Amino acid sequence: MSKEITSRQQDYSQWYNDLVIKAGLADYSAVRGCMVIKPYGYALWENMQRELDRMFKETGHQNAYFPLFVPKSLFEAEEKNAEGFAKECAIVTHYRLKADPDNKGKLIVDPEAKLEEELVVRPTSEAIIWSTYKGWIQSYRDLPLLINQWANVVRWEMRTRLFLRTTEFLWQEGHTAHATRKEAEDETIQMLHVYADFAENFMAVPVVKGVKSANERFAGAEDTYCIEALMQDGKALQAGTSHFLGQNFAKAFDVKFTDKENKLDYVWATSWGVSTRLIGALVMAHSDDQGLVLPPKIAPVQVVIVPIFKGEEQKQLIDEKVMGLVKELKAAGITVKYDDNDNNRPGWKFAEYEMKGVPVRIAIGARDIANNVVEVARRDTKEKMSLSMEGLSQQIIKLLDDIQTSIFNKALRYRDEHITPANTWDEFVDLLDNKTGFIACHWDGTSETEDKIKELTKATIRCIPLNNLQEEGKCILTGNPSSQRVLFARAY
Amino acid sequence: MSKEITSRQQDYSQWYNDLVIKAGLADYSAVRGCMVIKPYGYALWENMQRELDRMFKETGHQNAYFPLFVPKSLFEAEEKNAEGFAKECAIVTHYRLKADPDNKGKLIVDPEAKLEEELVVRPTSEAIIWSTYKGWIQSYRDLPLLINQWANVVRWEMRTRLFLRTTEFLWQEGHTAHATRKEAEDETIQMLHVYADFAENFMAVPVVKGVKSANERFAGAEDTYCIEALMQDGKALQAGTSHFLGQNFAKAFDVKFTDKENKLDYVWATSWGVSTRLIGALVMAHSDDQGLVLPPKIAPVQVVIVPIFKGEEQKQLIDEKVMGLVKELKAAGITVKYDDNDNNRPGWKFAEYEMKGVPVRIAIGARDIANNVVEVARRDTKEKMSLSMEGLSQQIIKLLDDIQTSIFNKALRYRDEHITPANTWDEFVDLLDNKTGFIACHWDGTSETEDKIKELTKATIRCIPLNNLQEEGKCILTGNPSSQRVLFARAY
Repeated sequence: MSKEITSRQQDYSQWYNDLVIKAGLADYSAVRGCMVIKPYGYALWENMQRELDRMFKETGHQNAYFPLFVPKSLFEAEEKNAEGFAKECAIVTHYRLKADPDNKGKLIVDPEAKLEEELVVRPTSEAIIWSTYKGWIQSYRDLPLLINQWANVVRWEMRTRLFLRTTEFLWQEGHTAHATRKEAEDETIQMLHVYADFAENFMAVPVVKGVKSANERFAGAEDTYCIEALMQDGKALQAGTSHFLGQNFAKAFDVKFTDKENKLDYVWATSWGVSTRLIGALVMAHSDDQGLVLPPKIAPVQVVIVPIFKGEEQKQLIDEKVMGLVKELKAAGITVKYDDNDNNRPGWKFAEYEMKGVPVRIAIGARDIANNVVEVARRDTKEKMSLSMEGLSQQIIKLLDDIQTSIFNKALRYRDEHITPANTWDEFVDLLDNKTGFIACHWDGTSETEDKIKELTKATIRCIPLNNLQEEGKCILTGNPSSQRVLFARAY
Repeated sequence: MSKEITSRQQDYSQWYNDLVIKAGLADYSAVRGCMVIKPYGYALWENMQRELDRMFKETGHQNAYFPLFVPKSLFEAEEKNAEGFAKECAIVTHYRLKADPDNKGKLIVDPEAKLEEELVVRPTSEAIIWSTYKGWIQSYRDLPLLINQWANVVRWEMRTRLFLRTTEFLWQEGHTAHATRKEAEDETIQMLHVYADFAENFMAVPVVKGVKSANERFAGAEDTYCIEALMQDGKALQAGTSHFLGQNFAKAFDVKFTDKENKLDYVWATSWGVSTRLIGALVMAHSDDQGLVLPPKIAPVQVVIVPIFKGEEQKQLIDEKVMGLVKELKAAGITVKYDDNDNNRPGWKFAEYEMKGVPVRIAIGARDIANNVVEVARRDTKEKMSLSMEGLSQQIIKLLDDIQTSIFNKALRYRDEHITPANTWDEFVDLLDNKTGFIACHWDGTSETEDKIKELTKATIRCIPLNNLQEEGKCILTGNPSSQRVLFARAY
């Protein structure tokens, strides 16, 4: 086997990095904190985009594109938002380079090309978008305005990790404008459900839907809703957020509309986003020590066919048979690759496609043809079976469905086993250190207590689940009264 | 009619700006030289992307994503490329803002957060990509490397125009690596043909395929091939370029491979791109004084249905009938919109969809239902016809095909009538000023002459057509000997 990766048990974090690199998902780049998304990783992103984009359009949203740069004066207009992002912004200050007079062939920033007003490379686009919406919204007839943007954003992170936290990342950001608070709140929740639906039914990653505490709220939002997933090392990962922005941005950018009664009011807003971080979540939720395990609905290649042969005659026989099978599988909507590259041996290919997480591998040799069967291996359980070539595509469709469900159920079982109630501080710390996962416990509702808990344990409140059970209790740290349990975890 | 635009004859340039704004394709933004691509404009871009992406993948390319930022030391590595873009680069120099101590609520750039090395916002990605390819290419087995990227780029343009020339724009950039000069040259030409195929068969814009003179070559290329289109005002527009980069970038970034004979050599490169500029080309090639004229293959909405009724009873009758028609049209793969918004009258809607360039408008009233017909108007010729509801979708498919062909043929006729030979300087100037379009004339092959002609007339060599007729002649300006005619024009 040409490629080996660190095992999860040995070093989970190293396992993840190895896997991302060896499976060809991404690479480090020459730019601090930025990564290169390689073709196989980008194919995953394209599959995610396609599905999310369909879901956004089905819920009435349209795509548009707003500038990469935000003039500083617009950036600072919504003070909380500005304060939240100011510390991690890339700033464009000049618009020209010139030859370095002291260094032939080198360039320097031209001091005469200094911008009058600096431009912030967008860390998020509320400011630039709401300054634009001011020109688009006059009356209730212009509402709701339901817009999404696929874009790159930049946040100057101090510690970065491939996919999970990079200085530049790709995402989508929805920005909607509404006539009433209720409508904006409904939109916020609707998009939360869209994200959860996508995560669970497409990525096979079970999520908890909930609302963030004040500490973890998006800068400038009144409420931040989120979907939280659990990785195999028991750490949580925020997989998507949907913000109810109230009238904060409308006030900051003076966006008013006349309602049906001809009264003037500020517009209500939401924003919501998911990013290439999801690829990190996907990798960490399902994969194993041999490589990626990809749910069929998102796998760039669903089925790989590897020929096993001796000599040109057998090869021709197999080629001919496989051409028919490929055609049949494609016609059934299955993404299939026939790897007859003769630079590599079957064993090498088997390992390679395990690393790449191809859900189904079909091996086919001369004897299989004689018996009218193929040898099929599923990536998730590594189970092997012999299937008749008769009606193969229908059998494969069933198998892919089964793999999709089975990957989800496995992750769901793990997640459900890792939501543990704690009733005392010692229990809380013990669970965090030894069992990991989400800890359901009472909290007195103050930021101070949450800060203190974070300081002591590195755990944060991941969310207060939607439709949470209301029960009297005492805060795990302070003993102060509490009306519900919240989910704490250490998180990515 | 709610919306009026300047006529082409009155002021072509103003007509274009009016049209882009009034048809809802784009808007000016708060950022100098940047635009907002509105949903209708973005839908055009999505349609273009989908088709181009399919064509790239069919020719063996994969998508990937490389960083937005290029460290200055990488940017300057390929000297000609660096020199060509240095004057128009946005430069990131800092990574943090902080509260302005003198101005509550305002932010300033934090002088302590100055980058050690400045980052150039990519104006094109050869540098960052070839610095990455160095790690990916060792042997001939790693070649060819056929990668495309969909991305935003920034070029600090002094004079900008919506879509045609903006500081930030969206594009795709292919970057391929090959083992031999021949293979790279073939790739360059192949992608030129892909672009021409797309422009002509999808956008219905006829193009001349050719190669650029040295003056108009991409900075860092050995040869730049291009497709050149002609707008309705007789000015040319470069619609796409494909560059043969030789070994320039491989040498700048030290990218070598061992060939089959185990010899070490530099890798051969190409790059090729088209951008949101194509939307400007599309608008200017076909549209008229009433609004956009969109070829059906690219129109976000191909058919709009407008009900004509008095009273709720008629409306219900029409609604019911239209539901069936919409279903039939959709099943036939046609994008159809039923506009039964009762805020607007039919006349207003007719004007609105003319402005938006919807290829086919269907009006349907109670009497039409009685007669089992619909009134159909095509946008390009404004011709009206009565079609039977029987087998409507087949008739509409035929009509859309006819519109697509007819828009292309009209543009082709105009273009062919505007390629005019000139044999004397006076003739050349007269044609440029009074007839416009491409002027086919002899040129002595020197940059000096091309510069001089540009200075005198603002015309440049758009291209030397592929498979150009070889004929002896004398340069239109200098009288020096020439072996072929080239195409001059004033250009966007």
